[in-house]
Amino acid sequence: MASVDLAKRAYDHGWRLDPIVRSLLDTDFYKLLMLQLIWRRFRDVPVTFSVINRTASVRLAAEVDEAELRAQLDHARSLRFTNRELIWLGGNTFYGVKSIFSPDFLAWLADYRLPEYDLSRGADGQFRLEFSGSWADVTLWEIPALSILNELRSRRALRRMGRFELDILYSRAKTKLWSKIERLRALDGLALSDFGTRRRHGFLWQGWCVEALKEGLGVAFIGTSNVLLAMNNDLEAIGTNGHELPMVLAAMAGEDDAALRAAPYRVLEEWRAAYDGNLLVALPDAFGTRAFLADAPDWLADWKGFRPDSAPPIEGGEEIMAWWASKGRDPRERLLVLADGLDVDGIEAAHAHFKGRVRTSFGWGTNLTNDFRDCAPVPAPELIPLSLVCKVTKAAGRPAVKLSDNVEKATGDRAEIDRYLRVFGEAGRGRRAVRV
Amino acid sequence: MASVDLAKRAYDHGWRLDPIVRSLLDTDFYKLLMLQLIWRRFRDVPVTFSVINRTASVRLAAEVDEAELRAQLDHARSLRFTNRELIWLGGNTFYGVKSIFSPDFLAWLADYRLPEYDLSRGADGQFRLEFSGSWADVTLWEIPALSILNELRSRRALRRMGRFELDILYSRAKTKLWSKIERLRALDGLALSDFGTRRRHGFLWQGWCVEALKEGLGVAFIGTSNVLLAMNNDLEAIGTNGHELPMVLAAMAGEDDAALRAAPYRVLEEWRAAYDGNLLVALPDAFGTRAFLADAPDWLADWKGFRPDSAPPIEGGEEIMAWWASKGRDPRERLLVLADGLDVDGIEAAHAHFKGRVRTSFGWGTNLTNDFRDCAPVPAPELIPLSLVCKVTKAAGRPAVKLSDNVEKATGDRAEIDRYLRVFGEAGRGRRAVRV
Repeated sequence: MASVDLAKRAYDHGWRLDPIVRSLLDTDFYKLLMLQLIWRRFRDVPVTFSVINRTASVRLAAEVDEAELRAQLDHARSLRFTNRELIWLGGNTFYGVKSIFSPDFLAWLADYRLPEYDLSRGADGQFRLEFSGSWADVTLWEIPALSILNELRSRRALRRMGRFELDILYSRAKTKLWSKIERLRALDGLALSDFGTRRRHGFLWQGWCVEALKEGLGVAFIGTSNVLLAMNNDLEAIGTNGHELPMVLAAMAGEDDAALRAAPYRVLEEWRAAYDGNLLVALPDAFGTRAFLADAPDWLADWKGFRPDSAPPIEGGEEIMAWWASKGRDPRERLLVLADGLDVDGIEAAHAHFKGRVRTSFGWGTNLTNDFRDCAPVPAPELIPLSLVCKVTKAAGRPAVKLSDNVEKATGDRAEIDRYLRVFGEAGRGRRAVRV
Repeated sequence: MASVDLAKRAYDHGWRLDPIVRSLLDTDFYKLLMLQLIWRRFRDVPVTFSVINRTASVRLAAEVDEAELRAQLDHARSLRFTNRELIWLGGNTFYGVKSIFSPDFLAWLADYRLPEYDLSRGADGQFRLEFSGSWADVTLWEIPALSILNELRSRRALRRMGRFELDILYSRAKTKLWSKIERLRALDGLALSDFGTRRRHGFLWQGWCVEALKEGLGVAFIGTSNVLLAMNNDLEAIGTNGHELPMVLAAMAGEDDAALRAAPYRVLEEWRAAYDGNLLVALPDAFGTRAFLADAPDWLADWKGFRPDSAPPIEGGEEIMAWWASKGRDPRERLLVLADGLDVDGIEAAHAHFKGRVRTSFGWGTNLTNDFRDCAPVPAPELIPLSLVCKVTKAAGRPAVKLSDNVEKATGDRAEIDRYLRVFGEAGRGRRAVRV
């Protein structure tokens, strides 16, 4: 019994909560980059973010206990950026740039906490989970809301398993990931990062995945979108910007179609004014890549690259490469960040396709941090990941809209979607099942 | 820091040795059954047991450090049967029989310790590790000697691996074993036990394997040969007798060929006098199964069964079934214990072959507790198991001989082997590579 730490055991036994989110840095890096821009230029724009379960067949409100969800959300609201986190954000070099976050922004972050949430249950078996307020206050909810819901769902499956079943589950998942890593290791010149925070099985599992990639891929693993894991593992924090910027700026255009059409380019100007160099990666698909490229300014061709997010990787990449060529730019000096629903097959195919023709970087998400298919020794449907998103749904008093290159990924008010389709056109849009 | 147990950490850091064998019960059950007979009837017969590495291509003395080996052997010599171990041996029911071990034998065990060993290094890169003395003193060395050598060799491979490589190694090994268990679970009426102590990767790994079988196979897992694991996991201890009995009794026959020819049957009489019922399982192959059956007494056909150990399972089993038939016995009421170099393929094949025709029980050894093929993420040749044995090599002043049904498994002095072949005949002997 001398080897039992009685104090620790008594303390451990008294836990009221095993918090899923334990740090405000446990978020995607692009949220912080966007937040700084939002805070500086659009902080008071009223917005609503809503959690949407695109896997409607799964009745999430039946799988996740509402009281547990509230306890986790409340715990996330109790968090503050700690001193050492703020010092690291201020002192670290991101994408080769020092002091990317300004002292006044960091001072504001020091007092930040997640705002209130609005949670109820719909007749459709889904939660209605919304975050309303000023854009600067609300935007950070996206990632913790998703990771909390996903991990609560995983935990439900884990709770039904015995000690041995859990051991086998994780042994298989580790074995599976390591086999993927061994395949990826064979890809010459690969650049890959972890984009799996929002859809992860759990925080500790994402940590294992990131350490496995660091150990297994070496320099081919260029970093993680998770800021906390980047800090703790001395990795690059990866990410630039997301759809909420064009979506909110489009909503802010009001009923003026010309202003709406100009909104995506205004985002680029704002981004260029806020950041430069390696952070100049454009997200072309909010209202359709074809339309975006058709009217894009020439100077965009000098940006570092694009992140085609909802087109098939090879097709979407080719479209952008053709655009670079039409602008007289050499794609071999440009970057494609590919990150939509990838797994090893897709990474191998795209890597082989683009090799020597354009630089590529892969953001590996759900299939990295939440691939437990065939791993559980007992039925565990809750381990099959959902297509769960947290999107801006209202902004500046109007419905927010995303069209994307995949009709299945479109979000927003029906009438407003139709207006956006009229303004931006339907060219180049496909329909593909959204799995993750 | 409140969660660090400072006392435990300081204590752990001060370990001088991580003992491989921590209990004298960490041995195969058949050794204790044989020991009781030896102690009662032949305790003072002088014998020598010798470790023999049949995988001559592996220079064991180059892979295992002699000082570490001595430290582990010395530690094993410091062990005594503890009170609770002796109470359990005396109070437990084995094979349905209470008080199988007599109080006088248990009293002798209470004072028992492993005797001295004789260790040196040969020019062939092998250790010469021998145990000489009275049979009752020496016999128990067999299992700890083997498990110590095997685990020291595993540890050498483990020491070169990083934290992650170790994690992958064990995840893969667990995944692999569980896949085997899932196949075995499909075999209706399977009876399987762990026979993997001597060739195990390590003690803790064998413990994991046994718990996995208990959880995964349920009643199809009938127990373990490892007495300590049987006690700790409330499992049946499995085993009856081994080759040393006929080998020593044959040597005790001296130069008298008739006495030599009678020796294997004298073993049966001694065994029958000592034990009965479910423990009446005969090992027919010490000097060749064909010869053994030809001269076997009729009453042997009433024993519970046979353990054909060096013939191919199906062929060897058929030979014994034909013998039962020739004696007018119904094989469906008899048992074949199959245990030679089995893996799942062999178990499935033999199970299907014998189903409904004879009762079978499988002893699963090396491929249960030491199958790390393709598991290590870095080269680890020391994880490929050796064919390492610890055999009686001298008894009663004469060389000890085993012929077996597989010429590759014959051991002993050349001239004496020839004499045994003359006495017992060569009929029915094959030659098959010995892998484990």
